Amino acid sequence: MPAQSLNLATDVVELTRAICDIESVSANEKALADVIEEALSVYPHLEVTRDGDAIVARTNLGRDRRVLIAGHIDTVPVANNLPTELREINGEEHLWGRGTVDMKAGVAVQLKLAGELVEPNSDITWIFYDHEEVDASLNGMGRLSRNLPELLKGDFAVLCEPTSAIIEGGCNGTMRIEVETFGVKAHSARAWMGQNAIHGAAEILNRLNQFQTQEVEVDGLVYKESLNAVLISGGIATNVIPDHAKVTVNYRFAPSKSVADAEAHLREVFAGLAVKVTDASAGARPGLDQPAAISFIAATGLETRPKYGWTDVARFSALGIPAINFGPGDPNKAHADDESCPVAQIYSCEEALRKWLSA
Amino acid sequence: MPAQSLNLATDVVELTRAICDIESVSANEKALADVIEEALSVYPHLEVTRDGDAIVARTNLGRDRRVLIAGHIDTVPVANNLPTELREINGEEHLWGRGTVDMKAGVAVQLKLAGELVEPNSDITWIFYDHEEVDASLNGMGRLSRNLPELLKGDFAVLCEPTSAIIEGGCNGTMRIEVETFGVKAHSARAWMGQNAIHGAAEILNRLNQFQTQEVEVDGLVYKESLNAVLISGGIATNVIPDHAKVTVNYRFAPSKSVADAEAHLREVFAGLAVKVTDASAGARPGLDQPAAISFIAATGLETRPKYGWTDVARFSALGIPAINFGPGDPNKAHADDESCPVAQIYSCEEALRKWLSA
Repeated sequence: MPAQSLNLATDVVELTRAICDIESVSANEKALADVIEEALSVYPHLEVTRDGDAIVARTNLGRDRRVLIAGHIDTVPVANNLPTELREINGEEHLWGRGTVDMKAGVAVQLKLAGELVEPNSDITWIFYDHEEVDASLNGMGRLSRNLPELLKGDFAVLCEPTSAIIEGGCNGTMRIEVETFGVKAHSARAWMGQNAIHGAAEILNRLNQFQTQEVEVDGLVYKESLNAVLISGGIATNVIPDHAKVTVNYRFAPSKSVADAEAHLREVFAGLAVKVTDASAGARPGLDQPAAISFIAATGLETRPKYGWTDVARFSALGIPAINFGPGDPNKAHADDESCPVAQIYSCEEALRKWLSA
Repeated sequence: MPAQSLNLATDVVELTRAICDIESVSANEKALADVIEEALSVYPHLEVTRDGDAIVARTNLGRDRRVLIAGHIDTVPVANNLPTELREINGEEHLWGRGTVDMKAGVAVQLKLAGELVEPNSDITWIFYDHEEVDASLNGMGRLSRNLPELLKGDFAVLCEPTSAIIEGGCNGTMRIEVETFGVKAHSARAWMGQNAIHGAAEILNRLNQFQTQEVEVDGLVYKESLNAVLISGGIATNVIPDHAKVTVNYRFAPSKSVADAEAHLREVFAGLAVKVTDASAGARPGLDQPAAISFIAATGLETRPKYGWTDVARFSALGIPAINFGPGDPNKAHADDESCPVAQIYSCEEALRKWLSA
């Protein structure tokens, strides 16, 4: 029996405050997972399963369609921004504090509707998962897909990550590579005995500067690509001609490209240089041409745009499930010390999902 | 009374071995300084002064000319290369071990001749000093010039740093600068919200690659200049557009240029970029047109060439004393794990200095 308990029938902003004030930095989600599990378990229309600190609550009404609605319950570290406060910012009421944007307001909307929607028009799988803000190998949704794959079956998914309460489709893919140059060490007093690897790295930076940002249309949304050096290092000491330099490059590529496409493109951009792929995640197509997405857009009348940041919608995409991002809060405020979410967006997300799932 | 004692009348290679085998990594010179002080103090023709672990031994014969002959007694850290061994390398007998090149073979030549030359043709100031291999602020010759400036008066100086037993005149100056670029941080998923400081650093590297190495004739010797990036760094994390990059550049400039000249030149090369001078040392003119140098070259018939690396001859130069480098061992073997000095060069340096000072 957890120390606290949640009333899911309460006002959604109050519910957001309650779950924000239960600190749940990644790896410390247990207390929050306990109260969520307890609160959902009282509803006879939900079948509740727990895996670690992830909770899955499903309706089983035999509907034609099953939608997955997911959110992570962990946050980045607290920065003197708990407990939450209601604050007026730029004339608008906000809930201020860690997690309000990323993404407990979205989780509160899920919790409220999970309790309330006893007879939704689709079967719903509500997913609350742990370890999203840390290394991908720990991700709770990844673990669920390995441990309990049957629970992640469905026709369409909504990830309640912050989108300022509009629909953001899919996400760009991301790849990191290391591009290296090599030379010959020498004492810098006799520089001509060596070969300077940092000077050689000019070629890497010049190619980055020549790269033309592409815009790629995928399923009706335009994705902007980018290619950027994010780290550079080289040199041993201030009196030694360096024999090695390394540039870490991050490529964000449209979801119409596979990881293999992206790698082939980078090997072309950096032809003749030593390239090593260190990290890659495919993007996710927006899937806005899918019936469930069409009905969601129609029911809510909301604007759609591409999502640029990589999110767990790509995990759904990899499972063959079209997925969109939709949640309260400005994504640029995620992780910020002044993280805060407009209260109106929490209500509008609640209302949009209710309307879509009840129509 | 030191635990060991030196016989300065012994063979110079044996003397080199003896002083190499008394480990004297910088800051640990006391044991060696003690035996040097004791060995020199037995000679009535020498006036011996000690300052910290530096020893100065002077003749006072009223000669027209006074020459300073100097060497440092510290070494870089030992790398399993003590005690010394006699080894045949490429068919030639070498003394192998830490300090044999940098620069105890030179110090042994000094010690042997300091004891032997009771009636030299010039007054001689023999200088043995500490802390050369570490931060310049600790340098024993620098300390002597502040504490006992009258002991560093003279007409000409020979620094017995390794030159493969030929005469290397003067030295290049050296300057280090940091050239920085600045940008605007952003999440790399939305790169166009930021400005990439590493991409901006391409300009620094391109200017370095465009730099033309100059050769500058000074007092009959040709000095080669160089301009090299020695360190580069930039970036915060692999998902952040970097707002800062820094390149540390080392400029080696001919001794005809002052530090101010060198700085003005670099500010021109990097015009429009943020430049900060972190470290500078003027070079030293070779002074081969000075009477003492002319007599040294005439007496020994040795080849002369420019010294590229900065050495303490620049300290003599700053005191208004022309100075050359002359000592046994290949400077490229200094600090190497396989540091070793051809035995023949130790004898030839001994003979050249004896001939010059006895003529």
